[in-house]
Amino acid sequence: MPSTDLPLESQHPKAVDLSHHVNKVSSSIRGSPLKHIFQYLREPGMVSLAGGLPHPNLFPYQQLDLKVYAPDAKIIPGETVTSSMNLSIPQYASETHQLNTLSRALQYYPGRSSPTLTALFYDFTARIMRPGYADWQILLNSGSTDGWSKVVNLLCEPGDYIIVEEHTFPSAHSLWAPMGCKGVPVKMDKDGMIPEDLERIMDGWEQNHPEVKKPHLLYTVPVGQNPTGSTLTFERKKAIYETCVKHDIIICEDDPYYFLQLPRYVSPSERNGINDTPQGAVSDADLLKILVPPFVHIDYQGRVIRLETLSKTLGPGNRLGYFVCNAAFAERLVHATEVISQAPSGWSQAIIEELLVTWRPEGYIRWLLGVRENYGIRRDWICDIIRDVFDVLPAGNEYNDDFIAVKKGHGQLQDTKSAPFFSFTYPKGGMFLYIKLYLSQNPKFRALRNAAENQDEEANEKWTREFWKDLIQEKILLTPHFFYTPPGNVEKKEESDVAFFRMTFSYETREDMHIGIQRLAKAFEKNWEMEN
Amino acid sequence: MPSTDLPLESQHPKAVDLSHHVNKVSSSIRGSPLKHIFQYLREPGMVSLAGGLPHPNLFPYQQLDLKVYAPDAKIIPGETVTSSMNLSIPQYASETHQLNTLSRALQYYPGRSSPTLTALFYDFTARIMRPGYADWQILLNSGSTDGWSKVVNLLCEPGDYIIVEEHTFPSAHSLWAPMGCKGVPVKMDKDGMIPEDLERIMDGWEQNHPEVKKPHLLYTVPVGQNPTGSTLTFERKKAIYETCVKHDIIICEDDPYYFLQLPRYVSPSERNGINDTPQGAVSDADLLKILVPPFVHIDYQGRVIRLETLSKTLGPGNRLGYFVCNAAFAERLVHATEVISQAPSGWSQAIIEELLVTWRPEGYIRWLLGVRENYGIRRDWICDIIRDVFDVLPAGNEYNDDFIAVKKGHGQLQDTKSAPFFSFTYPKGGMFLYIKLYLSQNPKFRALRNAAENQDEEANEKWTREFWKDLIQEKILLTPHFFYTPPGNVEKKEESDVAFFRMTFSYETREDMHIGIQRLAKAFEKNWEMEN
Repeated sequence: MPSTDLPLESQHPKAVDLSHHVNKVSSSIRGSPLKHIFQYLREPGMVSLAGGLPHPNLFPYQQLDLKVYAPDAKIIPGETVTSSMNLSIPQYASETHQLNTLSRALQYYPGRSSPTLTALFYDFTARIMRPGYADWQILLNSGSTDGWSKVVNLLCEPGDYIIVEEHTFPSAHSLWAPMGCKGVPVKMDKDGMIPEDLERIMDGWEQNHPEVKKPHLLYTVPVGQNPTGSTLTFERKKAIYETCVKHDIIICEDDPYYFLQLPRYVSPSERNGINDTPQGAVSDADLLKILVPPFVHIDYQGRVIRLETLSKTLGPGNRLGYFVCNAAFAERLVHATEVISQAPSGWSQAIIEELLVTWRPEGYIRWLLGVRENYGIRRDWICDIIRDVFDVLPAGNEYNDDFIAVKKGHGQLQDTKSAPFFSFTYPKGGMFLYIKLYLSQNPKFRALRNAAENQDEEANEKWTREFWKDLIQEKILLTPHFFYTPPGNVEKKEESDVAFFRMTFSYETREDMHIGIQRLAKAFEKNWEMEN
Repeated sequence: MPSTDLPLESQHPKAVDLSHHVNKVSSSIRGSPLKHIFQYLREPGMVSLAGGLPHPNLFPYQQLDLKVYAPDAKIIPGETVTSSMNLSIPQYASETHQLNTLSRALQYYPGRSSPTLTALFYDFTARIMRPGYADWQILLNSGSTDGWSKVVNLLCEPGDYIIVEEHTFPSAHSLWAPMGCKGVPVKMDKDGMIPEDLERIMDGWEQNHPEVKKPHLLYTVPVGQNPTGSTLTFERKKAIYETCVKHDIIICEDDPYYFLQLPRYVSPSERNGINDTPQGAVSDADLLKILVPPFVHIDYQGRVIRLETLSKTLGPGNRLGYFVCNAAFAERLVHATEVISQAPSGWSQAIIEELLVTWRPEGYIRWLLGVRENYGIRRDWICDIIRDVFDVLPAGNEYNDDFIAVKKGHGQLQDTKSAPFFSFTYPKGGMFLYIKLYLSQNPKFRALRNAAENQDEEANEKWTREFWKDLIQEKILLTPHFFYTPPGNVEKKEESDVAFFRMTFSYETREDMHIGIQRLAKAFEKNWEMEN
């Protein structure tokens, strides 16, 4: 079993020294002093009255049994899953069950959490993520909210500027905005963050923002980005990474949808029932060939902190994830874990550990492929439905998206192409489809903009809120873009006659999705005053 | 089932406005914007494509079964526990099981976590803690490390002074010291923090520290204090509370050992096999009559934040605890929960909820009494052993403790009373026994102090470290006091010719405890050069 403290035998270089990125508070965290005593506990014959551990006889749990899906269970919506397996964790170790016990799981953990579970994730990361440097480490956290909070508290000083996608995950900026940090939004298109815009901003930073400390942290959701659903290509990742090397920027890769990278959408008529999910026994190669490698794979310096989470593949309630990062950052994050949160829930650790051991590595891969297949089916549903409810046409060069949607039956008319309801791209990953609405021909928006009291931006904001309320009136709930605007932009470049809404295809039934998008079409027609 | 948002019907006053204590960052946290959308999800007929929830069909858990102790199980060390019960949580709701399901538990929770579990803790707190004001709330957290971290981040600005016991829990100050905060240590004796010393410090603050911002947060472990094992009397709690009212100080009551308040120690010869644990059916009154009420009971203004945890009663690995606090603080803490950590592990929430529902409230009280009885037996063990291994004599007025321990057989000699190895008091709660060593007659300490290069403090520190190493050599591990000194005291008042060590009686067997304390006696005799 590989140790997380030892570098994997590898021809990769070791991480470079990036300790100057660690902020003042994090540099000062010493971890819990009591943890230093633990080393003496292992000495043979030692009687310890030093610890403060409650007695495990007084944890009232005798045995946990969990019935779980077999990893190759077919989970077709509406059908019953029959293939299952049983896990069992006893209170104490027995001859048949040595490693994972409730008396251990329910006790205090050290800052590095369960060594067994850490080793399982280390092995998986080495094989599937293949980090580009030698001495990377795995450190468990309580999910990516906890992970991102610890990254910000590791690296950022109050008032720092943080590089983000121009539409970005709001819970991420809700954390740093109160610290007085501000966003540096980088332009995006259907393939996510545009490397050239990042380069432009950073190359010109000193000249354009002479008074402002240069950003040194980039936050990105590279796959199935939240909210845009865009997925970075390998080429873009490499280009972004090189700009970060050039300007000494740490990349935080928040990648919950990594295993939800989807095959290209094809229309139902072209779909022949075969998709790209391998059948039968699976290997690492099956997974690798359908996944764009992550930033941490490109990372030859140790400047990527990868946030891995089980939320989208084994359930958010596990509150379990892990950092993949360099040893110096990991050491600081261990101390932060000791004093800020402690290790993740012992129930979560024990159950996931038992699940992964029971499934075996090839079972875990099979499970990930199954989850991906499921979200792929759902992605197809929403795209099929949009094509059914609207007329969908290839977008011209003036659009950043692949397609435009117009009123049903208007696709044949010459003049509609200049004023679509929205443009979009079939998502290649994740759970989201983002639509970009064009307001220049919308009568309500024009009236708002022409009103003397409104700036263009205000008109946009007002229209979006009103249209969102119209949608709620029609009983269709989407998420409007104003949730996704990072606060405090220094590089402001919003268009005022477009609006964005996020649609999720992860949850509703196909029938409700269809009903919802029909309601959406109705709301569009009403608002654009195109009823009949 | 009581709602946590509604005040309990009560003649108590509402909390006063204490919002000026909230720091700048915490005042600015808006919580996750996406949470605002949740209100529309409940509208009948709504189709939602707004959320970002993974589909619960893709959580691979079908049923959890847990065999637990019955709450009245006898857990006598060395004996087998036979009385047990079964919990079962299905994947989805069925007719027989409506509330607690794995599909719910493994999904994202809102910042206020499980309403059912919150209501269970609310009811328990109303009955057993009986807060002194009307509109208090319960908010779940991921255990008291998480809780304390959120309190510091709610109230403290960098550089603040925090009032603490003069020996205090090191993991607590490891959190705030890196923020540049400093400790204001208040003198303690066998009954914990001395109210008169707190009053002296606060009344004289402006005069004695004219340049220093007045402290507005007091951190205390009121029962079985870590490390001293001392327990505040009700009178002391009231006096401390009144000083905090007078000087507008928030009290953080970190009270993991609350239910481990123990009956008075009596010697084995006086023990007649009867202790004070009620037998048979139990009521709230049984619990109330053996517990000193907490600060939150005295609190008529809402200035106490109580940290409740399940770590010492149901296991640390649950990583589950809760705040009892005023509504304004709770609202800020909810937002912090959303952006910093999210709700506690769904496994922990679901299992604890099911356990408490299965046990019923009277079962939970019975369990707490059983845990207390167990630690009471262990407390008796360590006290019996100390009396067996040393000669124990009543302490004179010159000691803050009840007893002194001298070399076995020397208790009859006239001159030993002036130079005991250590003084101590039989703990009235918790898991710890603290011993105070007297070094004035110790030849090694005297040599160190007489050496020209040492200040008194340095001599003390050096001696303590060397003696601690001697103990490790003898294979007996204790925790030395230098772990417990809060950093950055403005009110320094350490004695230089005493040293402290913490002993834990929660974990080792009686036999090992006996062996360990015999080794301790040997180390004392060697170090004091009293071997035969």
